[in-house]
Amino acid sequence: MVDKRQRFLDAFDIIRAELLAHFAGENMPKDAQEWYKRNLDYNAPGGKLNRGISVTDSAEILKGSPLTDQEYFRAAVLGWCVELLQAFFLVSDDMMDQSVTRRGQPCWYRVPNVGNIAINDAFMLEGAIYHLLKKYFRQEKYYVDLLDVFHETTYQTEMGQLVDLITAPEDVVDLSKFSLDKHRFIVLYKTAYYSFYLPVALAMHFSHITSPSAYDLAKTILLPLGEYFQIQDDYLDCFGSPEQIGKIGTDIVDNKCSWLINVALQHASPAQRKTLDENYGKKDKDAEARVKVVFEEVGLREKYAAYEESSYERVMGLIQTIPEGGLKGGDGEGALKREVFKSFLDKIYKRTK
Amino acid sequence: MVDKRQRFLDAFDIIRAELLAHFAGENMPKDAQEWYKRNLDYNAPGGKLNRGISVTDSAEILKGSPLTDQEYFRAAVLGWCVELLQAFFLVSDDMMDQSVTRRGQPCWYRVPNVGNIAINDAFMLEGAIYHLLKKYFRQEKYYVDLLDVFHETTYQTEMGQLVDLITAPEDVVDLSKFSLDKHRFIVLYKTAYYSFYLPVALAMHFSHITSPSAYDLAKTILLPLGEYFQIQDDYLDCFGSPEQIGKIGTDIVDNKCSWLINVALQHASPAQRKTLDENYGKKDKDAEARVKVVFEEVGLREKYAAYEESSYERVMGLIQTIPEGGLKGGDGEGALKREVFKSFLDKIYKRTK
Ligand SMILES: [Mg+2]
Ligand SMILES: [Mg+2]
Ligand SMILES: [Mg+2]
Ligand SMILES: [Mg+2]
Ligand SMILES: [Mg+2]
Ligand SMILES: [Mg+2]
Repeated sequence: MVDKRQRFLDAFDIIRAELLAHFAGENMPKDAQEWYKRNLDYNAPGGKLNRGISVTDSAEILKGSPLTDQEYFRAAVLGWCVELLQAFFLVSDDMMDQSVTRRGQPCWYRVPNVGNIAINDAFMLEGAIYHLLKKYFRQEKYYVDLLDVFHETTYQTEMGQLVDLITAPEDVVDLSKFSLDKHRFIVLYKTAYYSFYLPVALAMHFSHITSPSAYDLAKTILLPLGEYFQIQDDYLDCFGSPEQIGKIGTDIVDNKCSWLINVALQHASPAQRKTLDENYGKKDKDAEARVKVVFEEVGLREKYAAYEESSYERVMGLIQTIPEGGLKGGDGEGALKREVFKSFLDKIYKRTK
Repeated sequence: MVDKRQRFLDAFDIIRAELLAHFAGENMPKDAQEWYKRNLDYNAPGGKLNRGISVTDSAEILKGSPLTDQEYFRAAVLGWCVELLQAFFLVSDDMMDQSVTRRGQPCWYRVPNVGNIAINDAFMLEGAIYHLLKKYFRQEKYYVDLLDVFHETTYQTEMGQLVDLITAPEDVVDLSKFSLDKHRFIVLYKTAYYSFYLPVALAMHFSHITSPSAYDLAKTILLPLGEYFQIQDDYLDCFGSPEQIGKIGTDIVDNKCSWLINVALQHASPAQRKTLDENYGKKDKDAEARVKVVFEEVGLREKYAAYEESSYERVMGLIQTIPEGGLKGGDGEGALKREVFKSFLDKIYKRTK
């Protein structure tokens, strides 16, 4: 048995071939076909692929036994649609943030001769999703549900991105714009819907779960889980060791509206607030260090530890509202199972990277 | 009876209110709601609205009698979805082309404080389409067909945009990359599908036409019509008077892969070719004038006149393949009628602006 990541990557070869065969069939000029191939290869694989693989994992848990090769491939198509959606977001986010590197290579828009064409390239990563869904799922009763959940999630992510962009521009620091409410909105909309709810919802449709209340329940569990994941990400950016997280955190110098700064703002004395105002979001190691001193002073490590415990308890409690044998998911075959959510929670709880 | 444009604009007030009410209901921060309102107002209305209004016009022709107010509003929602799609394309095209103005005002990305946020703003104009379709058409049998035709058209337009971007970048002039085949691909994919086929296909679904052959026939007529329209646009850019077309043409200095340069390349002597190579795509009035001399020498005016006549005849011939009483469009109520296409052709033939 090839490893999980490799199996998922193998499915991409077929998917890419389908996307390119479609363009060839439309008589698109050769140089444009090659451009699209390069766009796909550069931007779709290469990440951790957690979101995509969680579709196939969840589909297998919901089935209760190994997927056949054909089932696996079809679930992997849905998984790759999530990865394509993420690629669409990341290529454009890097342009909006004027980032330099992504996944250890130059951001796509910084590759020679790409530049602003990357905007249209991002669109075409999104466009591929709907071509693939139509190609492989048009005949399914749940086809329209797949379309709806992709649309809704895409729009939600764009809403979160907008709030992030206007709340925390890199060049104008104004901590009075920050709040835990805004942080929560950004986290849920920009990350949790597409990273947590979407993969599971896709696996549920794939498993013929039809009852709206099963989807509501999944959302009730997965949004807090996604929020917990992002707050943990914010924590590790500052307090994780670079060896563990594989990068050096930059949230403070990048003026990010992170959980840490929002909690610090709530507890800061006037003097500490002054330090934060003067040093947050500055491209300066000393300023960053002064912010970290305030973070330590207000006790963010302890506050995070308490948050993590209560968050774990809360999500676990929500998972346990699912009957032990699973929640019957409508007149389809599937039932919603605790294991889908537990497998997410286990990967996240007390992770250090 | 208010005028046609005003009636269509009035529908936008309701549509915008719905989009904003949705965001308010999701507890999006106020400043982001206001940002989105500004994005919508700046970018969705303000153009000629031909594409959007052609949906309501076509729906009325297919019905054969005036639309009720409710029918009109629903057809107008589809029309505004076309306009939103176009706004999504134009906001991003202006960034990719580094354009300065659009519709007599600064391009959105050049408005103070917008900048690269315009990328996400473009996404949100596209995102609005699917929110509106779901809100107003989810219960219709043809809902999934609306989604499919929007997806397909969007992808086609992006394909055309890619070929345009890599064939005719503004800064690297290489006429050997041009060809009438590439011109044709760009015109059909970047313009004809979304400007001509999409509005009519939407009106057909709205009119309960279900037969795939009716859609094929519509495409068979509307793609050549769209090609004719764009070639005429290319012609007027150079040979129309600025008073007529309302702007000064810039295709030559902008290195556009237009019909004129491609036909000129086919007929140019080696000396004329040299002139074109040396002067096309240069930001220089004298270079532009030298290109125009070659255009006159190879007889582009006459060649265009001949093209226009044969194009008109061809499209008219295609329209006449529709039975006089209309083509029964499946088990739905609607029938496809010649008048839908004639009204397009009449607006285009021998127009001077
Ligand atoms: Mg970023
Ligand atoms: Mg960003
Ligand atoms: Mg982070
Ligand atoms: Mg342009
Ligand atoms: Mg352009
Ligand atoms: Mg033009």
